[in-house]
Amino acid sequence: MDAPEKNPDFIRNQVSFKRQDFCLSRNTGYLLFVFGTLRLPCPPKPHQTFNEVGKNLALTRREANFHERQVGNQRDYTGPMTYQTVAVTQQSGAATLTLISKMGAMNRTFWQEFPEALREISAARVVVLRGEKIFSAGLDVGSNAAQIAPALGDPAAFRAVVDQMHAVTEGLARLPMPVIAAVHGWCIGAGLELISAADIRLCSADARFSLPEVKLGITADLGGLQRLPHLIGRGRTAQLALTGDAIDAATAERWGLVTEVLDTPEALFARTEALAQQLAALPPKALEGTKRILTSGLPHAESLAEAVTWNAHHMSLEALQNALKK
Amino acid sequence: MDAPEKNPDFIRNQVSFKRQDFCLSRNTGYLLFVFGTLRLPCPPKPHQTFNEVGKNLALTRREANFHERQVGNQRDYTGPMTYQTVAVTQQSGAATLTLISKMGAMNRTFWQEFPEALREISAARVVVLRGEKIFSAGLDVGSNAAQIAPALGDPAAFRAVVDQMHAVTEGLARLPMPVIAAVHGWCIGAGLELISAADIRLCSADARFSLPEVKLGITADLGGLQRLPHLIGRGRTAQLALTGDAIDAATAERWGLVTEVLDTPEALFARTEALAQQLAALPPKALEGTKRILTSGLPHAESLAEAVTWNAHHMSLEALQNALKK
Amino acid sequence: MDAPEKNPDFIRNQVSFKRQDFCLSRNTGYLLFVFGTLRLPCPPKPHQTFNEVGKNLALTRREANFHERQVGNQRDYTGPMTYQTVAVTQQSGAATLTLISKMGAMNRTFWQEFPEALREISAARVVVLRGEKIFSAGLDVGSNAAQIAPALGDPAAFRAVVDQMHAVTEGLARLPMPVIAAVHGWCIGAGLELISAADIRLCSADARFSLPEVKLGITADLGGLQRLPHLIGRGRTAQLALTGDAIDAATAERWGLVTEVLDTPEALFARTEALAQQLAALPPKALEGTKRILTSGLPHAESLAEAVTWNAHHMSLEALQNALKK
Repeated sequence: MDAPEKNPDFIRNQVSFKRQDFCLSRNTGYLLFVFGTLRLPCPPKPHQTFNEVGKNLALTRREANFHERQVGNQRDYTGPMTYQTVAVTQQSGAATLTLISKMGAMNRTFWQEFPEALREISAARVVVLRGEKIFSAGLDVGSNAAQIAPALGDPAAFRAVVDQMHAVTEGLARLPMPVIAAVHGWCIGAGLELISAADIRLCSADARFSLPEVKLGITADLGGLQRLPHLIGRGRTAQLALTGDAIDAATAERWGLVTEVLDTPEALFARTEALAQQLAALPPKALEGTKRILTSGLPHAESLAEAVTWNAHHMSLEALQNALKK
Repeated sequence: MDAPEKNPDFIRNQVSFKRQDFCLSRNTGYLLFVFGTLRLPCPPKPHQTFNEVGKNLALTRREANFHERQVGNQRDYTGPMTYQTVAVTQQSGAATLTLISKMGAMNRTFWQEFPEALREISAARVVVLRGEKIFSAGLDVGSNAAQIAPALGDPAAFRAVVDQMHAVTEGLARLPMPVIAAVHGWCIGAGLELISAADIRLCSADARFSLPEVKLGITADLGGLQRLPHLIGRGRTAQLALTGDAIDAATAERWGLVTEVLDTPEALFARTEALAQQLAALPPKALEGTKRILTSGLPHAESLAEAVTWNAHHMSLEALQNALKK
Repeated sequence: MDAPEKNPDFIRNQVSFKRQDFCLSRNTGYLLFVFGTLRLPCPPKPHQTFNEVGKNLALTRREANFHERQVGNQRDYTGPMTYQTVAVTQQSGAATLTLISKMGAMNRTFWQEFPEALREISAARVVVLRGEKIFSAGLDVGSNAAQIAPALGDPAAFRAVVDQMHAVTEGLARLPMPVIAAVHGWCIGAGLELISAADIRLCSADARFSLPEVKLGITADLGGLQRLPHLIGRGRTAQLALTGDAIDAATAERWGLVTEVLDTPEALFARTEALAQQLAALPPKALEGTKRILTSGLPHAESLAEAVTWNAHHMSLEALQNALKK
């Protein structure tokens, strides 16, 4: 390992640190450090509120338990199959994560299992994310309500709940290798936020996309409102996020949410596999550097410097010579 | 009201403060505070220049006065009608602002009245912005020249003039509820800058959009050059802003400036009303949070934290339970 | 010249300085100044590595020399013709830069000559960038490998090499007048990065665009990964940059990479010339201010302040009066 000051990750962390982690007090001029959750207010939560919430959600919990009992049965995957909500297969450097909960819905088990699945595939050269019957119905409200409800009004508790979900969405975004999302059928809410953290999105003609969180009184907080404007622009994101209305596959392509629409789910998965093999055969450090630059959100000059430093460290004579031979 | 440190607005202001209001002196390393206009040079303006300007604009002023006398006559609105340049109607939580000056042009009266109209509708759950015969011919140069001309070359005086215009454009952008702009006919210059501060833009097939400021020797300074790149990208904004050429409704939709094109103005206004009622029925805090995240321009991690904090404070058990019942 | 504190450039530099050039040490809380290359690690490069590289590239160098001997012959331009890789013609305020190396490829000579050409046209009111047989095949790897290879693994040396290339791409972006890129045929790699630094991009129907750097083990580092997301969005940029696959003219227009597609190269060059003459007739300071705002990347409030200050200094009574007469 290089000394810290020679390590581009170290330099990069410093740079992003300066932009996100401190602020100036308007009144005193002192430098204050803002450490994410530490600055958020954490009022104690009265027990009666918690109990009341519990009573209200009793029915919901039974429903959620029923949902979870349905999950993970009758699967027939050839690869190692250790999760109830995500199937992991790996072949020729390409790892495939298939959402296998009912309707691809994100229940509590999903938030726990998916980060483990991400660790399992850390050596893959490309990742494919897909659904089973549909891509994803989004957050399984019934399954998650028992956690969410008692945290309402309590920012620290609420953040702790959402942090588990961010381990999925931000975890996917932080993977060093390219991630291809292949969407068929519905892709709703947290499902749309999840694919916005992928690098390349393809879909079949039957795909539908929506962000209906506002209908539940929720401001989408799993990265969709941050990432979708970079993909489709701020106006189209507002249309999706303020109305909750769905768009179809053709609109998604026209808006830039996906870059290709295939006729059928079968054609989609075949094309996705071919693309995954294409990327798996490319120099991984060049892909990783490209992805880092595209997602780091640094200002122009810093981003350009990061790209140059990355190449200085990771370009190889072999790859250049191969290019010269062609 | 919460204590300041529990108030997300307080936290948010601190965060945005750090990014916009101070800089480091390159030479001394001291922290300097930049307070907008205070840092701008304010040379004293010789009287002869002012007089010379006045003479040159005498004809213009007469023309401008004539324009203003034409404004506001023969209106027949059922709601309260107290302005010459904007009609305000409110129904079922939706407020409609109709530009009623001649050709929707922005004369001096408009800049004074529109901020008042914004205060008047502060309790609405959704706002519709539309024109009468056309959407807007943009800045009424004749009406505004008497104010602008003497301020040329005098940044403090010039900023004072533009600040009145920013009270309109930035004031619209800062409304907490969704704003839908419905454009028929021409939408020119300051008119295009104004709708870029809305959240959702619809138009009819007869709509035309242009940003001809450069033809008058003006760099558009009412927010269009800041906001349009988030809606249509930087290249298309450059095409509009550097050439002054117009685009039609189909191009506006293809570029992402509007999200829907209706066949006729009548169909446009009917669709807009339906959309407004749809949004007015949604939980307002979820809409407000969504709009804040989309317009705050914070870096990714800060923006994500803001969304989580917002939900912790504003999500309700009732809305969740309603969702569970469905 | 104004006193520094009255000079908008001075103010602007201060503002951008604060955002790019310092960071807070995570450990000490001290302010550290980051001065681009100075912060990058500069390990001494053992001579044997250099020699080994030289041997490997001997064949390549001969090839590269052969390429360079082919460049610049049999040209027939009427304007002053002093470069081997770029032809400069100027007419009625419009300067045209034509890439004349073989296939528009960027060999070592190109990186040296192009910045000189940019200085030569500094008085033009608009710049056209175009190719000859095609727009550009991108980096001439053979010609540049002798410089690049010994710098691999040595960030300071590598940055010195890339800095020469940035003098072209960033130099083009920093021109104060509008730059129109007219693309026919292939526009590959560094060619695509170069046109992303233009303001307006047009192409003919035969145009093809790709960013195949990853295939050579390279993370594109000439500004394309920074600028393309502002033009076509982050997802479409990822598709281009991670796959290396090409897109055609229709796709480029649909994605926002170009704003117009002409049927033939002849139609493209005629349209480009007309557009250049249109821009050359517009008030240059209004164009310059517009371009500055669109490319400066400042936060919203700062960018708005910059536009207002620009107009205060550069709007003219004459231009306003001309507008009033119409």
